[in-house]
Amino acid sequence: MRSLKFTLAYDGTNYAGWQRQPSAPSIQQAIEEALAPLAGTFTGVVGAGRTDAGVHALGQAASANLEAVHTAPTLQRAMNARLPPDIRVVDTADMPLGFHARFHAIGKTYRYRMVTGGYVSPFDRWFVWHAPGQRDVAAMRRAGDRLVGRHDFASFQAVGSAVRDTVRTIHRIEIVETAGELVIEVEGDGFLRHMVRAIVGTLAEIGAGSRSPESIDDVLAARRRASAGDTAPACGLTLVSVKYPQATAGS
Amino acid sequence: MRSLKFTLAYDGTNYAGWQRQPSAPSIQQAIEEALAPLAGTFTGVVGAGRTDAGVHALGQAASANLEAVHTAPTLQRAMNARLPPDIRVVDTADMPLGFHARFHAIGKTYRYRMVTGGYVSPFDRWFVWHAPGQRDVAAMRRAGDRLVGRHDFASFQAVGSAVRDTVRTIHRIEIVETAGELVIEVEGDGFLRHMVRAIVGTLAEIGAGSRSPESIDDVLAARRRASAGDTAPACGLTLVSVKYPQATAGS
Repeated sequence: MRSLKFTLAYDGTNYAGWQRQPSAPSIQQAIEEALAPLAGTFTGVVGAGRTDAGVHALGQAASANLEAVHTAPTLQRAMNARLPPDIRVVDTADMPLGFHARFHAIGKTYRYRMVTGGYVSPFDRWFVWHAPGQRDVAAMRRAGDRLVGRHDFASFQAVGSAVRDTVRTIHRIEIVETAGELVIEVEGDGFLRHMVRAIVGTLAEIGAGSRSPESIDDVLAARRRASAGDTAPACGLTLVSVKYPQATAGS
Repeated sequence: MRSLKFTLAYDGTNYAGWQRQPSAPSIQQAIEEALAPLAGTFTGVVGAGRTDAGVHALGQAASANLEAVHTAPTLQRAMNARLPPDIRVVDTADMPLGFHARFHAIGKTYRYRMVTGGYVSPFDRWFVWHAPGQRDVAAMRRAGDRLVGRHDFASFQAVGSAVRDTVRTIHRIEIVETAGELVIEVEGDGFLRHMVRAIVGTLAEIGAGSRSPESIDDVLAARRRASAGDTAPACGLTLVSVKYPQATAGS
């Protein structure tokens, strides 16, 4: 038996998200179907993050225990030959036995692209949120600074989520402004369902002047989803990378 | 009457090319249909280059004579509201009366993206040619240098093309190598049908070692399409920009 780590890039536009669904295509199902004929005994693939429908990935991580005799690079090539072109395995590595992409992850970085200019490039149309209009980026950065650190993010969790421990640590929120676009990067130890999108939606309202940066403190204290801003659309979000401790860094 | 210049970006994947077709969607038709309700008397749109089916544009230029009373920015916004999201008007400018996007163009720059690595990113899958394998980029550059200048490019023109004067000037062929990708930029005063793609296909064969850089001289002298390499796929090609003399640079 071996434990393998797969690093995955995908255009999530045509998928119901990472997780297997009874009647909709998922990334997990596509990966499992590509791996199954190669893997011998095989109990499924675990993803580091359950990306939502329409969310993209540059560096999602997934793990599987299997008995395949192929080398990691051969597995990667064979999987890419089977996968649809909107999902690619960008790296495959042997890991210490028992490696688990979700339990062992210690951090994730997400990127959100928000186009503030008058139009969206045809080449970006599936990968950004079009939210035209000037934003006060300095105010958005001040608000972001108030979110960095260890907080109860219950106000930024999707309504109906079953997760009880809503305390997370955000290490970094960085907003890069280019012509007609804001790129918001959020790095943390873990994220609640819709958390990054709720943060982006709230920052967008602060940038538009309908909330103050200081109001973030009340939003955090409220622990009610309604106190934060709207959830920004899934299409603008990309899971950039997943971090693991050195000990499980693999080959 | 006014003459207007439209700068257009498009993802050409779902179009039969620039030029109107009796029974297939074209960029020209989409632009004309977006403009018609805004333009009053209006005799159609002229494109600087007739991009082929599947070819993309970052800066195609088009012109039209019309009687619309709207300002150029208002026309741009209204057209973008009507156009499908894979076509955008990225600039609109009033020009001296009589401006003609094709007759007045003095140069064009094309970019070709060729992925030489093992896989194509899901985000690039419509915009590159996947031609895996190491290439001798120095040999490709030497071959490119032999194409720069004023030559008869008949060997690089699509079979069956009606154009008789096949002499063109290439100002620059630049090959930029990044991890797993070659980007080939070609700038010239004008291009024959399939010319850039035939150049790329020939350079790819030289990079793979199946032709020598010096063989370019014989290919040019032959004036037969069969003497050059295969035509690289349309999806990797993008019309980057169109150049006009200062006098018609517009507002």
